[in-house]
Amino acid sequence: MAINIKQIKSPVSDEMAEFEKKFRFFMKSKVMLLDNIMSYIVKKKGKQIRPILVFLTAGITGEVKEATYRGAALIELLHTASLVHDDVVDDSQYRRGFFSVNALWKNKIAVLVGDYLLAKGLLLSVDNGDFELLRIVSNAVREMSEGELLQMEKARKLDITEEVYFQIIRQKTATLIAACCAVGASSVGAPQETVDRMLTFGEKIGIAFQMKDDLFDYGNAEIGKPLGIDIKEKKMTLPLIYALNQADKPTKRKIINTIKNKSDNPDKVAEVIDFVRKSGGIEYTTQVMKQYVQEAKDLLASFPESEFKSSLHALIEYIIERKK
Amino acid sequence: MAINIKQIKSPVSDEMAEFEKKFRFFMKSKVMLLDNIMSYIVKKKGKQIRPILVFLTAGITGEVKEATYRGAALIELLHTASLVHDDVVDDSQYRRGFFSVNALWKNKIAVLVGDYLLAKGLLLSVDNGDFELLRIVSNAVREMSEGELLQMEKARKLDITEEVYFQIIRQKTATLIAACCAVGASSVGAPQETVDRMLTFGEKIGIAFQMKDDLFDYGNAEIGKPLGIDIKEKKMTLPLIYALNQADKPTKRKIINTIKNKSDNPDKVAEVIDFVRKSGGIEYTTQVMKQYVQEAKDLLASFPESEFKSSLHALIEYIIERKK
Repeated sequence: MAINIKQIKSPVSDEMAEFEKKFRFFMKSKVMLLDNIMSYIVKKKGKQIRPILVFLTAGITGEVKEATYRGAALIELLHTASLVHDDVVDDSQYRRGFFSVNALWKNKIAVLVGDYLLAKGLLLSVDNGDFELLRIVSNAVREMSEGELLQMEKARKLDITEEVYFQIIRQKTATLIAACCAVGASSVGAPQETVDRMLTFGEKIGIAFQMKDDLFDYGNAEIGKPLGIDIKEKKMTLPLIYALNQADKPTKRKIINTIKNKSDNPDKVAEVIDFVRKSGGIEYTTQVMKQYVQEAKDLLASFPESEFKSSLHALIEYIIERKK
Repeated sequence: MAINIKQIKSPVSDEMAEFEKKFRFFMKSKVMLLDNIMSYIVKKKGKQIRPILVFLTAGITGEVKEATYRGAALIELLHTASLVHDDVVDDSQYRRGFFSVNALWKNKIAVLVGDYLLAKGLLLSVDNGDFELLRIVSNAVREMSEGELLQMEKARKLDITEEVYFQIIRQKTATLIAACCAVGASSVGAPQETVDRMLTFGEKIGIAFQMKDDLFDYGNAEIGKPLGIDIKEKKMTLPLIYALNQADKPTKRKIINTIKNKSDNPDKVAEVIDFVRKSGGIEYTTQVMKQYVQEAKDLLASFPESEFKSSLHALIEYIIERKK
């Protein structure tokens, strides 16, 4: 039976409703332009995995407090800021070679709105003395930007090892999910050992989440055709890294050359995908992903049974079972 | 006699040397790309008015402490982050209509580097328990981004009042200078009343600083020809706002129409400048600026004489006497 987000959310659905109200109120500003952009952002909200994780981990480690709401808002503000900044980055990659005045406006505004959201989050924490939450989240911001930059540095060279791959996905993706779980536990006053365990738990599921994403690029039964977007963007992920490590030198050289120089040719991209599939890159990545998932489950084992624990288990299943 | 920065800096030159060493060490990162960008940024350092202000205001209100260095670093990280983000914004305004791949890379990196610097500053404060400094600085970040956005919202309409002008320059420019002065005082453990007074002091000199900048656009004896850049960019500053308020309706309509539709014609820009000069916009702005300077001086009056106090007075003179 397919797991859905609504099911996972159910033990904290009251808290999530309350959170949305609080968050909307908190985003209010006296600058109209900003207010308009904010309503737009709030409307476009996604699955809200992050705040759900904050409330579930708060639930499994103690009792939801006001600080839990502020922690979830801090994470959400930070995440929204980084999405807004990503828009700047992605706009830049259109490769159409030029921008309209309108697109430029958006760029300028996006940078400022991102900064504003960060500052709002900071003030919420500072004004309420949530220094431990702030420490967890600041660390995540540093790791995330460092991870992005590390990826850029390495991406140019196309010689990423498994170790570097894991470092990048840990920093880029897993850090924020880990922060959600640590914030949840810390906000209810859980002991440091528990906060650390939840941080590790979040890191494991974050890594598994990204690996699943990376697998999609090489196709699955539901989507049908492989996407090949990562290859086009010369992004080296585990299925490809593993396959290259298995290959003999001439093959390796040929594939790397294809990625370097012909990645805008769909036939050539299909060749790379085929090479990865035949080398067992998919099976290997799936297997490692399942290890991470198992480690995450083990970290939950010592908690007493509860609806929160069941939901966290369901969330883990969802991460590796989702179809897109 | 012309005042120079070296003179102003002299009572805190040892602290500034120490600060530069500490700052360089603090900026180190394990990502090479980031390290290279950081060295580049550190090399390009300007007059360093901000850290100088932190140390001078710390000196006049108490004794420089380790927290003063961290406060100066926090401000400098924040300021650098905002400069790096401004580069993204300014790149967008090239109006050449397109970007090279290289320019895109820089855009992407600039956003990330800015975020990284912000996070570094946060962690420095959080890890050392400098929560009051963090509160001052977070507030400044919020005000600054809000001020920029307010300016964009208003700029489109070209109907800025004196009141809105002061709100914008207070938020955009004066807030950070005010934060420097408050951080200086707070870092040495000065009483809240003194911290507040230094915040107001910084706000006054920040406003005067921006007014002086805005005056440059309408020319001075040293530069010779007026710049007219603000007019070209349809930026309404006090000399122009005042002049428009003095004008009769048809003149006002004509000038606004020129700015709106013909601001890329240098002859038309010269016409606007001429209109502002003849309407007394320069004299009026200079007079108001001098009021702010006087209020700043008055705020220093109750402090005992010291080399710090003399330097702060010299800094005030420098702000309104500088030639560019």
